[in-house]
Amino acid sequence: MSADLADFYLRQLRDDCLPFWFPRAVDEQHGGFLHCFDRDGTLVDSDKSVWAQGRMSWMLLTLYLEIERRPEWLAWAESGLRFLEEKCTDPEDGRLFFHVARDGTPIRKRRYAYSESFASIAFAAHAAATGSDESATKARALFDRFTDWHFTPGRIPPKFTEARPLTSLGPRMITLVTAQELELRLGKNDEISAWIDRCLEEIETLFVKPDLRVVMENVAPDGSISDHFDGRTLNPGHAIEGAWFIMEEARRRGDSRLAKLGCDMFDWMWGRGWDREHGGLFYFRDVFDRPVQEYWHAMKFWWPHDEALIATLMAHQLTGETGYLAMHRHCQLWAFDHFSDPEHGEWYGYLHQDGRPSSNLKGSLWKSFFHHPRALLLCHQLASRMIKD
Amino acid sequence: MSADLADFYLRQLRDDCLPFWFPRAVDEQHGGFLHCFDRDGTLVDSDKSVWAQGRMSWMLLTLYLEIERRPEWLAWAESGLRFLEEKCTDPEDGRLFFHVARDGTPIRKRRYAYSESFASIAFAAHAAATGSDESATKARALFDRFTDWHFTPGRIPPKFTEARPLTSLGPRMITLVTAQELELRLGKNDEISAWIDRCLEEIETLFVKPDLRVVMENVAPDGSISDHFDGRTLNPGHAIEGAWFIMEEARRRGDSRLAKLGCDMFDWMWGRGWDREHGGLFYFRDVFDRPVQEYWHAMKFWWPHDEALIATLMAHQLTGETGYLAMHRHCQLWAFDHFSDPEHGEWYGYLHQDGRPSSNLKGSLWKSFFHHPRALLLCHQLASRMIKD
Repeated sequence: MSADLADFYLRQLRDDCLPFWFPRAVDEQHGGFLHCFDRDGTLVDSDKSVWAQGRMSWMLLTLYLEIERRPEWLAWAESGLRFLEEKCTDPEDGRLFFHVARDGTPIRKRRYAYSESFASIAFAAHAAATGSDESATKARALFDRFTDWHFTPGRIPPKFTEARPLTSLGPRMITLVTAQELELRLGKNDEISAWIDRCLEEIETLFVKPDLRVVMENVAPDGSISDHFDGRTLNPGHAIEGAWFIMEEARRRGDSRLAKLGCDMFDWMWGRGWDREHGGLFYFRDVFDRPVQEYWHAMKFWWPHDEALIATLMAHQLTGETGYLAMHRHCQLWAFDHFSDPEHGEWYGYLHQDGRPSSNLKGSLWKSFFHHPRALLLCHQLASRMIKD
Repeated sequence: MSADLADFYLRQLRDDCLPFWFPRAVDEQHGGFLHCFDRDGTLVDSDKSVWAQGRMSWMLLTLYLEIERRPEWLAWAESGLRFLEEKCTDPEDGRLFFHVARDGTPIRKRRYAYSESFASIAFAAHAAATGSDESATKARALFDRFTDWHFTPGRIPPKFTEARPLTSLGPRMITLVTAQELELRLGKNDEISAWIDRCLEEIETLFVKPDLRVVMENVAPDGSISDHFDGRTLNPGHAIEGAWFIMEEARRRGDSRLAKLGCDMFDWMWGRGWDREHGGLFYFRDVFDRPVQEYWHAMKFWWPHDEALIATLMAHQLTGETGYLAMHRHCQLWAFDHFSDPEHGEWYGYLHQDGRPSSNLKGSLWKSFFHHPRALLLCHQLASRMIKD
């Protein structure tokens, strides 16, 4: 079965996902990637997400490193990196924009700095693929810029008053996975390791609540729960993604305590997120099962399912428990049944609660060539390792 | 039938909507209104929307003026007005906050100034209810603050770069209806009339596109369509609400050209917004029928249906066309079938595309005692006028 599973994910990556995106997404005229596509690949918006430029460059370079040294993957990724540097960087302060026009004209810069984190992992993968010291230096500088922006008090312009400060899981998760990528591609480094340790500790002490069997998305600075809409809102897909970042760290370190932390996080948030009526993972839930204020809370988005596919296989790999394989199979069946589009390839992004597509969009300012191919690659690799074990 | 209809809406207002909100919403401890309620009226968040403080005060005063001089409605509204002045105003710049804690501690101020517009109509209604010159002066000052903020170039901190400026229907619609309320409650005034004329002209020349049979939500400053997600996104409920603001102006002026404009706007956006598969009005559509990027585009929210109930009766009143009565009946049947909660009263706010409730929330930072009671009152009054005609 593991051989079948490994083969299934590789075929999905090679025959369903990659051909939808490439070469269609490559912008031969301005460089970088177009990514706002309708069901059949028709371009519905020529604008570019800066996140997507970094994420798609990283994904292509990762496939180049992990699957096959295909020169076009490297060339396309390098076009993305050039576009990021030349068109997506604000010369006034060196920060990256969030949203640019096809030719790179800036449209929007945001308060936060996730554009920098995705550019960082792309340059790190480029350094590993080509041996470029320059790219390694850029990757580290972007990581420093991201962590400085998100962890230096007062750096981010506030959206709320000081009256009820909340701190979020997101920056810790992204710092953790970005640092892991830098370690993997550029080698170990004390400064990077310290960031990993710090994020693991903050996630565990601030956001993980064993008494409530939950991973919070936002907490007060002391880790307490703010009993208001924002403070109570859970994001199961996000917490499940964070859970496998921690499982991956547990695997690298051979740390069983960390493995249990990651598995607990997954178990709790799978339990809270899975829709027992219609199947699939809800987008938001309330920690006390009160109504959620965000409108799309009950919709099924593609990416939490990709993250759950990875998390279940990793949890199985770490623990040997067959229950995780059963959960993987359950999630795989529902997700491929509902998100797949056999006619045009690639997953739909947005389903109604009942699993019908709510939109035909395959790509947008939020969805690009990232979560789904990453899950297909990692599940292929995890299932392949199961065969060897 | 009109007598039945007038009676139906009055009963819904008196027996279904009002008892859900009052006295439950009155905050005896801190003043103002609580409004984040679960299906059965359980308070799920004690935070307060500043919009809701103004809107609920206005609605109570309007009922006091139009239905019955009940002293508790006046007293509750005055508590809302005091809370607005004493707790929701930023002493630093005189602008209103957007979101405060129960005791008035400020949580969030936003870039735009709709809090001011809703406070303005509340003070105007208070002036009419009590003869208070002070409230009349406050209403005018808040209107000036709102229009200054939204129509003076450079006043609002930009969210996007200058590269692709878009201008929105929202500020024109809200200026129009706020000015109409000020005229109704405080009497005619050249300055206010000039704002009404300006907004009517800008809505017609910039946002109404007879060749495409559409009302745009956002356009370039010259009225052209920006062929990107944001520029193409239509908000049928919003345009239908704007349509009846224009029909109301047509009625006041006896202006048949304006009546046709309002009816055209309604016809086109009803045609684009009504879901012929499941019934109900979609939240967003794309002007060229491309996929919409906003996640909740296919959901059915309560307020567009309230606005369509008003618009259909007004269009019938202006034109005498029975087709509008049929549309009213169609919308009424679907809306009361799907949004009503006979067990606990008041409408649900948020349905899936297929009409099932997506959330049990009856009130939130967005939904309070405003769109639904306003529609019930206006439909009662419109149906009553039909009897007399």
